Amino acid sequence: MLKITGTFLDEISYDIPSHNWGEKEWDRDFSAMKSIGIDTVIMIRCGLRNEMTYDSEVLRRYASGMKPYRDLVEMFLLLAEKHGMKFYFGTFDTGLEPEDRDHAWELDVNKKVVEEAWRRYGSSPAFRGWYLSTETGGHNGIAQGYAELGKHCKELSGGLPVLVSPFIQKAETGLAAGPEADAAALELHRKAWSSIFASISGAVDHIAFQDGTVSIPDLPGYLAINMELAKEHHIDCWTNCETFDRDMPIHFLPIKWDKMYRKLEAAREAGIDKAITFEFSHFMSPNSSYHSAHGLFDRYCEYAGLRA
Amino acid sequence: MLKITGTFLDEISYDIPSHNWGEKEWDRDFSAMKSIGIDTVIMIRCGLRNEMTYDSEVLRRYASGMKPYRDLVEMFLLLAEKHGMKFYFGTFDTGLEPEDRDHAWELDVNKKVVEEAWRRYGSSPAFRGWYLSTETGGHNGIAQGYAELGKHCKELSGGLPVLVSPFIQKAETGLAAGPEADAAALELHRKAWSSIFASISGAVDHIAFQDGTVSIPDLPGYLAINMELAKEHHIDCWTNCETFDRDMPIHFLPIKWDKMYRKLEAAREAGIDKAITFEFSHFMSPNSSYHSAHGLFDRYCEYAGLRA
Amino acid sequence: MLKITGTFLDEISYDIPSHNWGEKEWDRDFSAMKSIGIDTVIMIRCGLRNEMTYDSEVLRRYASGMKPYRDLVEMFLLLAEKHGMKFYFGTFDTGLEPEDRDHAWELDVNKKVVEEAWRRYGSSPAFRGWYLSTETGGHNGIAQGYAELGKHCKELSGGLPVLVSPFIQKAETGLAAGPEADAAALELHRKAWSSIFASISGAVDHIAFQDGTVSIPDLPGYLAINMELAKEHHIDCWTNCETFDRDMPIHFLPIKWDKMYRKLEAAREAGIDKAITFEFSHFMSPNSSYHSAHGLFDRYCEYAGLRA
Repeated sequence: MLKITGTFLDEISYDIPSHNWGEKEWDRDFSAMKSIGIDTVIMIRCGLRNEMTYDSEVLRRYASGMKPYRDLVEMFLLLAEKHGMKFYFGTFDTGLEPEDRDHAWELDVNKKVVEEAWRRYGSSPAFRGWYLSTETGGHNGIAQGYAELGKHCKELSGGLPVLVSPFIQKAETGLAAGPEADAAALELHRKAWSSIFASISGAVDHIAFQDGTVSIPDLPGYLAINMELAKEHHIDCWTNCETFDRDMPIHFLPIKWDKMYRKLEAAREAGIDKAITFEFSHFMSPNSSYHSAHGLFDRYCEYAGLRA
Repeated sequence: MLKITGTFLDEISYDIPSHNWGEKEWDRDFSAMKSIGIDTVIMIRCGLRNEMTYDSEVLRRYASGMKPYRDLVEMFLLLAEKHGMKFYFGTFDTGLEPEDRDHAWELDVNKKVVEEAWRRYGSSPAFRGWYLSTETGGHNGIAQGYAELGKHCKELSGGLPVLVSPFIQKAETGLAAGPEADAAALELHRKAWSSIFASISGAVDHIAFQDGTVSIPDLPGYLAINMELAKEHHIDCWTNCETFDRDMPIHFLPIKWDKMYRKLEAAREAGIDKAITFEFSHFMSPNSSYHSAHGLFDRYCEYAGLRA
Repeated sequence: MLKITGTFLDEISYDIPSHNWGEKEWDRDFSAMKSIGIDTVIMIRCGLRNEMTYDSEVLRRYASGMKPYRDLVEMFLLLAEKHGMKFYFGTFDTGLEPEDRDHAWELDVNKKVVEEAWRRYGSSPAFRGWYLSTETGGHNGIAQGYAELGKHCKELSGGLPVLVSPFIQKAETGLAAGPEADAAALELHRKAWSSIFASISGAVDHIAFQDGTVSIPDLPGYLAINMELAKEHHIDCWTNCETFDRDMPIHFLPIKWDKMYRKLEAAREAGIDKAITFEFSHFMSPNSSYHSAHGLFDRYCEYAGLRA
């Protein structure tokens, strides 16, 4: 059995509609998280395009940021403190396609953003880490950004840990589908990530690959390689157990418990000992707008030996 | 602060699934509307393709209309009367693309429909206006229809007010994206709508542009032009504050409160003093099937100084 | 009035997200079914691609089947027995496009699957029929499979009845849309299904065409032909009254009651006396995650003279 002990907070979202919760409803959801042993909350990003989670002067200036209705960073930090949880601060994301990004510009803006955030919120005892929000399947410019921005975050904050959550991208091998193509794709993954792990070592503390971008039968092969590389490069390998379903026509509703179960077990069997999820509040919370999340919560609690 | 005081009733819909409410549930939702100060309900259309809201002989004959399970016009009028609200009757819509429409035929059928509706329901004290249901971003045939059908409705009913709710369509200018292109698009909007406002003046009393078809930073420019033209042509300029989210993969769930807030504030700053919404029952009602609507209701009530 | 007396159980699904119910929640839903007179539950398939509803050795071996978290066949049989309902066992489906299927291989695997299922579960008093899960609009290979697999199921089980639920596929006639094209499409339907009915007679007992793939005005013509062919070939003609809405952007939420009402009435007028639905638990249950299903349940109960 592998427990979920962390969750993203996705209140600034690409593709998941807001619950429109106020502080009272967020407080109730942090309680639900705490009740099943979640000790880490990760704000997925502090800004996306021109949306912001706090009134950032940096993002107003460089990304035409629009003032949010309320300061989410402040609220999440207060709730994390109240519930005894660690808060990770997610960096700014332009939301652009990899080929459209100006990586040097993004790095520069993000350095200014994390400095500003640390000045404003760094004194909170719940501020316990950084999350580098750009997601990648192995793009070199982005990986380079992980190394430089991660280092900057750590220097700034007296070494607070840095988390990334890339996705597994099954490579095209040119071979017909089958065991040979699968093996070749695995080797391409190893090669690409071997180089990335080397470059981010020292700048990134935890890596939690998204577990929903390859099929369940393929998953163990990728997890084994990830664990091996992580050990070699002294990075903690967690898993990001996605609790939304990528395979249904409605994008997105909670995943079927069977799938979540299989992914958790695959991670456990690979030797992974910490699971986080994207994300609790919509997809496995008893407070979610989507009722099938309530069922997922109940099934997970049965599995984890918790009283639902 | 700008209050929402009107809502569409969308029980005959292109794209929003029905709640399958009976009279009891609709009564409860009219109570919720009333509780936050909604005084105007606008039935979005009386017929769409072969669907009808009442058993119209005209639509049976000209549009193969199918008898509805219950007479929605009668029910909505009774509830509007009970709750002291004004009911606007929406005209028939073929649902065709602009280029496929036979505007003369549609006008002719709609004249017959509104005559029939006025004969049947005109004696209700809640019947207080007309809504011309065809939506346009500036199509001339449709605008001409507004002028002729609006005039017909007013003559028929002793001058009851007529409402339209077009959308803002940011024009292609051929220029590269940027401030110059934005300014050029605004001027094209002014030119197109200047001519439309002139042609509908006297036939249309209120115009409520949909506020979700341009970006929030672009919105103030369009609102300013709309207000200017509306004043010049003696038409009331309301706003149709859309409470569904156009930017999420699920089409459609309730909008994030931050967006609604920004759009209301943009309208207020432009000098608009009446806001209606598409629409209360699915997207901001405490009775909605979508739970994030309950959150939107609560956030709106906080903003508007109402007790949720 | 035509009552719904059967429903599919879709816990292994192409496109409908799971409720993540445990036994307690399923028990509650079987109670709700029973309360409105549902006497037949049809497990839509025992396996789909590499998903299984029970730990089938056959599917593990031939289709890389993955063990389910719990044995759904066992649970559904126990609940059917408890609530006095007939359970139909659905066959395995590869989920492939018709042209990609190896019909002989599928038939062979399915023969093994139904043998295994009958050995394991055939002693349950609730095991009362078979459902051939492949859906078709008239594909010959699939129809041939109905004949052979149906016969095998009946021989195996002492003649338990066999159900299929194909869809109506309005044929392309090359004629411009209009009454002539409609009539020509009807004749093509008659011709194709006349031959299929002849080939499946004796192997299939009940046929329940899906009622949502043609327009409501077109439906009566197809139902009349289906009834005629069914009588001629001594097959019971039921209707599969779909309770989800195919015409809305969200795929899929509960249908509008007006549509369900019209489809039930069209079936009744065609002389059909048993209606099943795809499916109760998501789309018309008072326990559904989708709240508009609660409304559909209430409206249906009013129509059927039941106390909701």
